[in-house]
Amino acid sequence: MIKKFTLENILNFEQRYRATFINSLGGFKSLVLIGTKSKSGNSNLAVFNSLFHLGAHPPMVGFIIRPDSAERHTLNNILETGSLTINHVSEEFYKQAHQTSARYPNDVSEFGAVNLSEEYDEEHFAPFVQESEVKIGAEFVRKINVEENGTIIIIAKIKLVSLPEYGLMKDGFIDLEKAGTITCTGVDAYYRVKKIARLSYAKPNKLPDIL
Amino acid sequence: MIKKFTLENILNFEQRYRATFINSLGGFKSLVLIGTKSKSGNSNLAVFNSLFHLGAHPPMVGFIIRPDSAERHTLNNILETGSLTINHVSEEFYKQAHQTSARYPNDVSEFGAVNLSEEYDEEHFAPFVQESEVKIGAEFVRKINVEENGTIIIIAKIKLVSLPEYGLMKDGFIDLEKAGTITCTGVDAYYRVKKIARLSYAKPNKLPDIL
Repeated sequence: MIKKFTLENILNFEQRYRATFINSLGGFKSLVLIGTKSKSGNSNLAVFNSLFHLGAHPPMVGFIIRPDSAERHTLNNILETGSLTINHVSEEFYKQAHQTSARYPNDVSEFGAVNLSEEYDEEHFAPFVQESEVKIGAEFVRKINVEENGTIIIIAKIKLVSLPEYGLMKDGFIDLEKAGTITCTGVDAYYRVKKIARLSYAKPNKLPDIL
Repeated sequence: MIKKFTLENILNFEQRYRATFINSLGGFKSLVLIGTKSKSGNSNLAVFNSLFHLGAHPPMVGFIIRPDSAERHTLNNILETGSLTINHVSEEFYKQAHQTSARYPNDVSEFGAVNLSEEYDEEHFAPFVQESEVKIGAEFVRKINVEENGTIIIIAKIKLVSLPEYGLMKDGFIDLEKAGTITCTGVDAYYRVKKIARLSYAKPNKLPDIL
């Protein structure tokens, strides 16, 4: 049985039901912890599920910040210092990653509050998550205000990547299943993955092969 | 053994290696087929892996288009008609979804070329993918040019949702594992998922519970 909902139906949903419905509608997401630090030295860690690939040359990513949420400290630190880290989440610490979304006071570091370890690289200001297998150091490029709902798109440039050697294939592909990265839907559902296949580059007159 | 790459290393990668590396670095992605139709009646279908949640009220999503790619027909049709559909991908037709990324001529519909079926709703102009379990009808809101690399962010408003009743939970959560939705990394790796858990809303002084 197929259920069909119009915009009018959706706008009439109870508020929390609607948020849960729309948040889980978009498919599986990139689940990362974004690490920052204020100029005065307060570190911050927040979970995000909106990371998207923007380009490989220069290497750039984007993500969404809701300024009225626990994410506002991340935004302030990025605007103040230009520095952030993007850290993949493994099954071993997904509950701690989730817990960073609690509204801790400004002077409490989520690293300490959820028991994850800050790790520093001499070439980068913002703290990495030591427990993460795949770590990205990035630099703020610019922000785009989405007037329709007050969210902000942050565009960042990748400056530093660290990952386990066994996760890197010969053609540059990073095998995130091997690296233990997990995925999520909505704001609270976490999933491990199992590869189906990699497929060859698509050409008009030939079906793709399994690599 | 940990491998570390600086921006300089990454910029010195061979071009295809770099694209594969950076594309797979960002984690698991939302894998969807976007359906459109030109005013003159040519339907188009293209695979995307950059869909992100922008907000629940109003329900909005965003995604990235590379105008120099097979995605340019999608862009033209969206700008011409304002209408698009977003269709989840299942394991049953992931090869066909991948194949839509081949550079077919403008007058060839990927629906026919890859053997997926157009489905129409009387309230929506753009074609849905009949084979998809979860289908979203959406309306163009605006585009944002990313000057740094010539990509375009499309913002769209959700107007219509259709999904199997068994995939919708009592609290509005859509169980995409049940619905058979798959995920991907990079531009060619496809994965099925297995739920670890849903976690309760995070509060500062309490670890989250498994729902």
